[in-house]
Amino acid sequence: MNLLNTLKICVIAFLFTSLLNTTTQAQITPVLTHDDALKMILASKKHAELSDVLVNIAIVDAGANLKAFIRMDDSYLGSIDVAIKKAKTARYFNIDTGKLGELTQPGGIIYNIEHSNGGLITFPGGVPIKNKNGKIIGAIGVSGGTIEQDKSIALAGAKSLLN
Amino acid sequence: MNLLNTLKICVIAFLFTSLLNTTTQAQITPVLTHDDALKMILASKKHAELSDVLVNIAIVDAGANLKAFIRMDDSYLGSIDVAIKKAKTARYFNIDTGKLGELTQPGGIIYNIEHSNGGLITFPGGVPIKNKNGKIIGAIGVSGGTIEQDKSIALAGAKSLLN
Amino acid sequence: MNLLNTLKICVIAFLFTSLLNTTTQAQITPVLTHDDALKMILASKKHAELSDVLVNIAIVDAGANLKAFIRMDDSYLGSIDVAIKKAKTARYFNIDTGKLGELTQPGGIIYNIEHSNGGLITFPGGVPIKNKNGKIIGAIGVSGGTIEQDKSIALAGAKSLLN
Amino acid sequence: MNLLNTLKICVIAFLFTSLLNTTTQAQITPVLTHDDALKMILASKKHAELSDVLVNIAIVDAGANLKAFIRMDDSYLGSIDVAIKKAKTARYFNIDTGKLGELTQPGGIIYNIEHSNGGLITFPGGVPIKNKNGKIIGAIGVSGGTIEQDKSIALAGAKSLLN
Repeated sequence: MNLLNTLKICVIAFLFTSLLNTTTQAQITPVLTHDDALKMILASKKHAELSDVLVNIAIVDAGANLKAFIRMDDSYLGSIDVAIKKAKTARYFNIDTGKLGELTQPGGIIYNIEHSNGGLITFPGGVPIKNKNGKIIGAIGVSGGTIEQDKSIALAGAKSLLN
Repeated sequence: MNLLNTLKICVIAFLFTSLLNTTTQAQITPVLTHDDALKMILASKKHAELSDVLVNIAIVDAGANLKAFIRMDDSYLGSIDVAIKKAKTARYFNIDTGKLGELTQPGGIIYNIEHSNGGLITFPGGVPIKNKNGKIIGAIGVSGGTIEQDKSIALAGAKSLLN
Repeated sequence: MNLLNTLKICVIAFLFTSLLNTTTQAQITPVLTHDDALKMILASKKHAELSDVLVNIAIVDAGANLKAFIRMDDSYLGSIDVAIKKAKTARYFNIDTGKLGELTQPGGIIYNIEHSNGGLITFPGGVPIKNKNGKIIGAIGVSGGTIEQDKSIALAGAKSLLN
Repeated sequence: MNLLNTLKICVIAFLFTSLLNTTTQAQITPVLTHDDALKMILASKKHAELSDVLVNIAIVDAGANLKAFIRMDDSYLGSIDVAIKKAKTARYFNIDTGKLGELTQPGGIIYNIEHSNGGLITFPGGVPIKNKNGKIIGAIGVSGGTIEQDKSIALAGAKSLLN
């Protein structure tokens, strides 16, 4: 095998690898799109309807900026802001809002952190959104049901991105 | 009995049904009016005067927007905002504010929800306003007395709508 | 006329003057009461109804703190805050809000003063409330009609205090 | 024709009338639903895509409370709040935001009204949403393109409700 042939193989291997990368990148989601957001909103809404719960659903992107929102009919007006704040809180600290809440109680290590960022919500219902690579690309917040229902509906939305 | 008579009876039956519908609709209150609001404010104020308490009274409509307000002479200045926030909180979550407060204590399932919606008030004194059909059409918030007095005065206002 | 008589006359004159003062003070209003506020709200509302205009009416006391408020059915939601801000602005600077607006235009001596105090409204519809002695004891703000209508309705309310 | 037949006809006429009423009520929209909101968001988005414009779209209900929102990929981050404020402003004053802006210029009759209600947006892109009866049941706000594009996209959304 001469040098030329070696070179050829290297070029082919490089091109093949690049091609493979592109294909893989097309399948994962580096940035949360509005189509992703709509898909997750609808998946969460369907989960809520099956559970007979009325909720508000908010999605923020990697910059913690609102990407999509819906308020189901007859759900709480107060849940508009709670859902948005849950989504923001989950992305601000890349954490399930319920987990954060364990640390913000009296005596907790980040007691009353809720006073920052224009108000945080630190009970369950906000979860980070991860792509297939496990990278956090946003967060989803749900409010209107019990905290268990809210969390479950939020997770249903977040997971729908991976399908 | 001929066709004409049949027709007459039908027309009468139709008019009667329409009338019945209209009458029923006139007796219930689908939307909180300013007359309703004034009536409730005065009923609450009278209740407060009989109890020798000085309060602020706020009423919001179904959209949680301020409809009417009064501050009794020599009542607390700080109660202006507390009364308005109690009314808004009661409508935001369709709940007696005191009931909400049982869930927002340290360790509670919605601890520190007060940080949402520009500030919530979660101790007694805010109650939803229901029409005769039991539909929530707004809320009333009272501040200035003890929490028991505030709640009692708020309830007196809300109930006056049903008389 | 001896000294004793002179003294007697002085005492009688003093008592008479005191009595006169007391009587006069009972007729004027040193502090805006909730009854005054309700009276003015209803006078403004009646004026609005006669003019076929739907408005929001707000009254603040000498401390520029909200004393009473009503939103007429079907009036603008945005007028809640505008009416309250007109009343506050009128008392903050003891001036007809329209007069203040003449000075806040580009090039005006207090250009953009609207940025202070959490937002001012400087077009007509807010007027100070004066008692019979001419002392300013609060202000009334009206929003929902044309600026001429708003001002006229506000003045009708303010004047009703003097009747 | 006996009494029984007469009764039958009456019952049928009554049921038919009821059915007619129900059908009519099903065709008009007394309250903006989340399905309406989604439909309008998608109609506006489609219009924006056909026009090659990247926008944020917000919908509020009759109470000026957020009902649905979407931010198109690569659209301005600053347009999140502008779109929401356009929708709120349009409902606050039941007006095309651009029409309002004609009155808020220096020298205008409501100069600087933007300082009220936590900030108004008074250039084109916000329009009221009317049902088939012509009743205003909410508003839509669009931001991200030129003001002509924003207004056109908002109108496309609002009109889609009537189809």
